[in-house]
Amino acid sequence: MRSVSIIGIGQTPVGELWDLSARQLAYQAVAGAMADAGIDRADALFVGNMLSGRLLDQEHLATLVADFCGLRGIEAAKVEAACASGGAAVRVGTMAVASGFHDIVIVAGVEKMTDTVGKDTTAGLATAADAEYEALHGVSFVSLNALIMQRYMHEYAVPLDAFAGFSINAHRNGANNPNAMFQDAITREDYMRAPLIATPINMMDSSPVCDGAAALVLVPTEWTREFTTGHHRGAVRILASASANDTLAVHDRKDPLFLEAAYVSSQKALRQAGLTQADLDLFELHDAFTIMSALGLEANGFARRGEGWRMATEGEIGINGRIPISTMGGLKSRGHPVGATGVYQIVELIQQLTGAAGANQVKDARLGMAQNIGGSGATIVTHILGG
Amino acid sequence: MRSVSIIGIGQTPVGELWDLSARQLAYQAVAGAMADAGIDRADALFVGNMLSGRLLDQEHLATLVADFCGLRGIEAAKVEAACASGGAAVRVGTMAVASGFHDIVIVAGVEKMTDTVGKDTTAGLATAADAEYEALHGVSFVSLNALIMQRYMHEYAVPLDAFAGFSINAHRNGANNPNAMFQDAITREDYMRAPLIATPINMMDSSPVCDGAAALVLVPTEWTREFTTGHHRGAVRILASASANDTLAVHDRKDPLFLEAAYVSSQKALRQAGLTQADLDLFELHDAFTIMSALGLEANGFARRGEGWRMATEGEIGINGRIPISTMGGLKSRGHPVGATGVYQIVELIQQLTGAAGANQVKDARLGMAQNIGGSGATIVTHILGG
Repeated sequence: MRSVSIIGIGQTPVGELWDLSARQLAYQAVAGAMADAGIDRADALFVGNMLSGRLLDQEHLATLVADFCGLRGIEAAKVEAACASGGAAVRVGTMAVASGFHDIVIVAGVEKMTDTVGKDTTAGLATAADAEYEALHGVSFVSLNALIMQRYMHEYAVPLDAFAGFSINAHRNGANNPNAMFQDAITREDYMRAPLIATPINMMDSSPVCDGAAALVLVPTEWTREFTTGHHRGAVRILASASANDTLAVHDRKDPLFLEAAYVSSQKALRQAGLTQADLDLFELHDAFTIMSALGLEANGFARRGEGWRMATEGEIGINGRIPISTMGGLKSRGHPVGATGVYQIVELIQQLTGAAGANQVKDARLGMAQNIGGSGATIVTHILGG
Repeated sequence: MRSVSIIGIGQTPVGELWDLSARQLAYQAVAGAMADAGIDRADALFVGNMLSGRLLDQEHLATLVADFCGLRGIEAAKVEAACASGGAAVRVGTMAVASGFHDIVIVAGVEKMTDTVGKDTTAGLATAADAEYEALHGVSFVSLNALIMQRYMHEYAVPLDAFAGFSINAHRNGANNPNAMFQDAITREDYMRAPLIATPINMMDSSPVCDGAAALVLVPTEWTREFTTGHHRGAVRILASASANDTLAVHDRKDPLFLEAAYVSSQKALRQAGLTQADLDLFELHDAFTIMSALGLEANGFARRGEGWRMATEGEIGINGRIPISTMGGLKSRGHPVGATGVYQIVELIQQLTGAAGANQVKDARLGMAQNIGGSGATIVTHILGG
């Protein structure tokens, strides 16, 4: 298997970008990544996206983006795994280079969720759940996570404000990220008075509906020297790339409070990289809801079961903490354009690993993990990157 | 790069299968392929599908199928490239094994297009076109192909009945395929009196809306000996796997009558396999409309430009013809469950290459090509298989 490295990154700001269509967002990210890498061609483009068919009446999105970016004649395909679509597209791009089928592969994630006239974004997001056994009965994605959070609070006797620190940390970091949707720090009081969306999830527990695109350029590691001369940020190697699934429906799981697929996925990845989680300098986790931050820290071995919420302090998850998370704002503050999120996570990991994270730089960051979750823990993609 | 072979195939009959949901269809195909291969586990499942999000309110389909098939903990992702989704999923599965990331990979294609209460299948299919510059203006997929066919007839002074032979051939072959949607041979008179759908396309030029699923089991070629003992049909090697794109919108093309991406895609594939098209014993092309058969034969070098329609005779494209096409009925007669079609093509190629094509067996078939088209020629995936 050929070793794969990333030599270019691109991203748009995240937000309600009503003046930019999906193809324009994707173009900005792809053109940015190609300029960053110093390349003017590619062999393939894989696009992570979840909702273009429903919200934009546009399937066949990868070929559209390739066309709009002037990349004719290359391979193009969209990869979908709900909110893990971005991570799944990175997986496919990695396999394309690792196999030797392609040398220069662009992976983009794009999602346009606002300004979709006449479409129901909440119903769209619910298609990540089991249509026949969950969504049909009226469950939305927020309410599924609310059930899990409710159970967690009951099972472990955790108070409502136990999750505040995850949101405070995300916003503190997002405040320094010019691409974040929310660039305002919040206080515990802001969290406590946030309106409830689905009890016990409040507005500050939940990531926003938004638009955005991010992109990466992948090449064989042995090629990186020729690309990364001069002022280039330097290549970052993909040390591991893995994915695992669980039951789609939450009620089918042995234990809805344990992200089995996160455990399996990161175990596969750590084995590939020959590392343990104690070796990691930061962890870009999937904080779509604060409960997912707690469960993610637990399933990946950073906290005991039922104690992930205790890590929601600056000393544990802050930039200078034991294991920094959501270092550029995470899904909560940077934003969660669903199919793009997995690619944003890798872009931000690379900013950290190349010393380009500005005020949020994790000191001496050498090894980082990103974990992208589809559905309520049903598809979990893990990447480990290193300098 | 590891060589990849297929050791198992599965398929459901194609038709209006109102009593089977998408997950049940996929299960039948996957379980069939696993039984055929004699395996009870897999490392990954890639699913080709185009319309589940719109028509079934179900994204996250690959993980759902993996779950329903009892394949927990493995990698799962959906691959989408409009009607080329099946072929694109085979590409990803091939890269997964070739790279060494996985050893046993299942590729399934599934589409459920009928019995979708309250959904508009025609509008769904139009999402393969450019939403902003084609579909928004009222173009459906049939009408786009009708414009191309109209232009072809004008440009090359071809009469309306020039395409009849493609439909007659497809139905002749479909009549012997127990999995085909239409198992009735048709006559030239049947073709001539078929009602028009979008002038000049009539009902017999056009593939049907239907349901179906097909699946493959891929392993490294070096592993095949241990699987293919006893009564096993024998493994078939993937000699080439390639994809190319063109502009999404037909009006952006230099020449709408030349499938540039088919040419690029098959040239890539023939180069990989070290073959020329003259070496091929059969060609499963993408006859969604009869005009696409003509254009496919031309772009792939089997006919001169403007003369593909002349091949619509038994002597040229029949089972005993120069280059047999649609040997199990093609999209026209077997049916075209869009995201599954690319996988059906490979399943049928394997039936031919292992001598299991029954009454439609192409004598001494050793090398075959399958070509799966997304949109009106915008994404074209080509596979070459050999014994």
